[in-house]
Amino acid sequence: MRIAVLAGGIGGARFLRGVRVACPDDTITAIVNTGDDVTLHGLRICPDLDSVMYTLGEAHDADRGWGRKGESWRIKDELRAYGAEPSWFGLGDLDIATHLVRTRMLEAGYSLTDVTAALCTRWQPGVSLLPMTDDRCETHVVVELAGARRAIHFQEWWVRYRAAQPAEAFVQVGVDDATATPAVLEAIVTADVVLVAPSNPVVSIGTILGLDDLREALVTGPAPVVGVSPIVGGVPVRGMADACLPAIGVEVSAEGVARHYGARSAGGLLDGWLVHDTDTAHVEGITVRAVPLMMTNDDATADMVRAAMHVAGVRV
Amino acid sequence: MRIAVLAGGIGGARFLRGVRVACPDDTITAIVNTGDDVTLHGLRICPDLDSVMYTLGEAHDADRGWGRKGESWRIKDELRAYGAEPSWFGLGDLDIATHLVRTRMLEAGYSLTDVTAALCTRWQPGVSLLPMTDDRCETHVVVELAGARRAIHFQEWWVRYRAAQPAEAFVQVGVDDATATPAVLEAIVTADVVLVAPSNPVVSIGTILGLDDLREALVTGPAPVVGVSPIVGGVPVRGMADACLPAIGVEVSAEGVARHYGARSAGGLLDGWLVHDTDTAHVEGITVRAVPLMMTNDDATADMVRAAMHVAGVRV
Repeated sequence: MRIAVLAGGIGGARFLRGVRVACPDDTITAIVNTGDDVTLHGLRICPDLDSVMYTLGEAHDADRGWGRKGESWRIKDELRAYGAEPSWFGLGDLDIATHLVRTRMLEAGYSLTDVTAALCTRWQPGVSLLPMTDDRCETHVVVELAGARRAIHFQEWWVRYRAAQPAEAFVQVGVDDATATPAVLEAIVTADVVLVAPSNPVVSIGTILGLDDLREALVTGPAPVVGVSPIVGGVPVRGMADACLPAIGVEVSAEGVARHYGARSAGGLLDGWLVHDTDTAHVEGITVRAVPLMMTNDDATADMVRAAMHVAGVRV
Repeated sequence: MRIAVLAGGIGGARFLRGVRVACPDDTITAIVNTGDDVTLHGLRICPDLDSVMYTLGEAHDADRGWGRKGESWRIKDELRAYGAEPSWFGLGDLDIATHLVRTRMLEAGYSLTDVTAALCTRWQPGVSLLPMTDDRCETHVVVELAGARRAIHFQEWWVRYRAAQPAEAFVQVGVDDATATPAVLEAIVTADVVLVAPSNPVVSIGTILGLDDLREALVTGPAPVVGVSPIVGGVPVRGMADACLPAIGVEVSAEGVARHYGARSAGGLLDGWLVHDTDTAHVEGITVRAVPLMMTNDDATADMVRAAMHVAGVRV
């Protein structure tokens, strides 16, 4: 059996831990958002790929919720002492080693797919970890800053401004020239089921779906697609989806997100949709099931995954 | 009064501390070897410039003798864990911040001279710190390794092999296309005295002199040139000059080095030469003076500097 999972960073990583509990490792391919990727201080940083890699490789800081355990911040302080901007990004010392290796390999001509595989030989995440694309395709956010309308990198909006400036729009810079990787398309067309993690529907899953060929493969592919709502009781379980959904005119609710993704039978993404057991959703063509959606631990998450597989008609 | 000092790394840095005690700060220009510079893990590293900058900026580790005080090595360990080579270079965490800032500025198109000045706004070394050139001009060493004759970067020979493989020759890769910077030439032609630090005569001072225009400016310039012997009693005071001098056919002695540098009156470098008070040297055209040459502290070094200035006929 083959399972493909569309995932963002931290929420996607937690969801994938549950998938690993519910399903054998060698069946799982994670297709991860790279729209958050950014180059800072000359280092190529892939926050979502690294969140998944560290979290599945048991190298993550579970208390802080992001980055490496045992992390330190000496270089960040040094860079600030030199006056080197930006200083708002949480660039950890251990993390920098990852970025140095990645940057150097990319500059040597390797694809991000190959670089990610090389980094994973150390962390052994137990899944096949794939960037959605090897092309540069970065999410920028249109906001009003100091009275002027500006497009800033997603990370600047998210980390520096904590998404406090209302997003007027999200722009995927480079998306017209970007394609999904062959490995990603292969994973989708050979999958027995595709799961959509409860990641941000706009800046994580939405970014992945922004790749036309990837979206087309999902919509027309043989595998059922089942998603998990990131919204419970009208608020995001984690993250700041509520700061993103209004910008694209989507209601912050389990049903609103399902409606936005749309039914595969009507050219959309979903065959099935899990909502939290206190929520409801009704979208024609989408099988909705209500189960507990709190990823409090890997076993609870695995139960969610099993419920999603059941909706998909796949036995695990 | 204006003083120009030719210097390598650690020995040069200690000598310059003495120059600062003997002379007012704003009179001193350090012209520093960049032949040791190397790019590792995508980072542009300038060991001699940094040794001088850190040491004069009181940021150096005086006990270890190189690098930053309070240094740590987390990233180096991480890189090794990723299998990223080389792992033999002592790349400290604090040091990496310096390299990141430098690499980024160089990639943005700034000259090494400008980058060095920018870094020095933080460290305030109290001297005008100049790389000898803004061009790439790296010292490689011809050695026999595993039965084959190879040219390896100076750092690999020095740090990885501890200069244990006999050097057959030193090659300045790129020297034919390299020129001294305008700031360096200006410092030389406007100097009242030029001092040659007791740095390695081959891979530090010799590298600086490898720049034709710089050597020409020294040989034909108005300022007297006085050097300090790095050899005391037939052995280097520090470093591994004894591993370098034989490769260029120079005797490891105070007189051997003076003879190698040559008298300015005969087209060479020196007007004066300080040897340790237990040494002697006789080279026609060079005024030799014997004084204590151990740089045990800044005041002792300042006495050496005053002696050198006296030989040059300059009053401080």
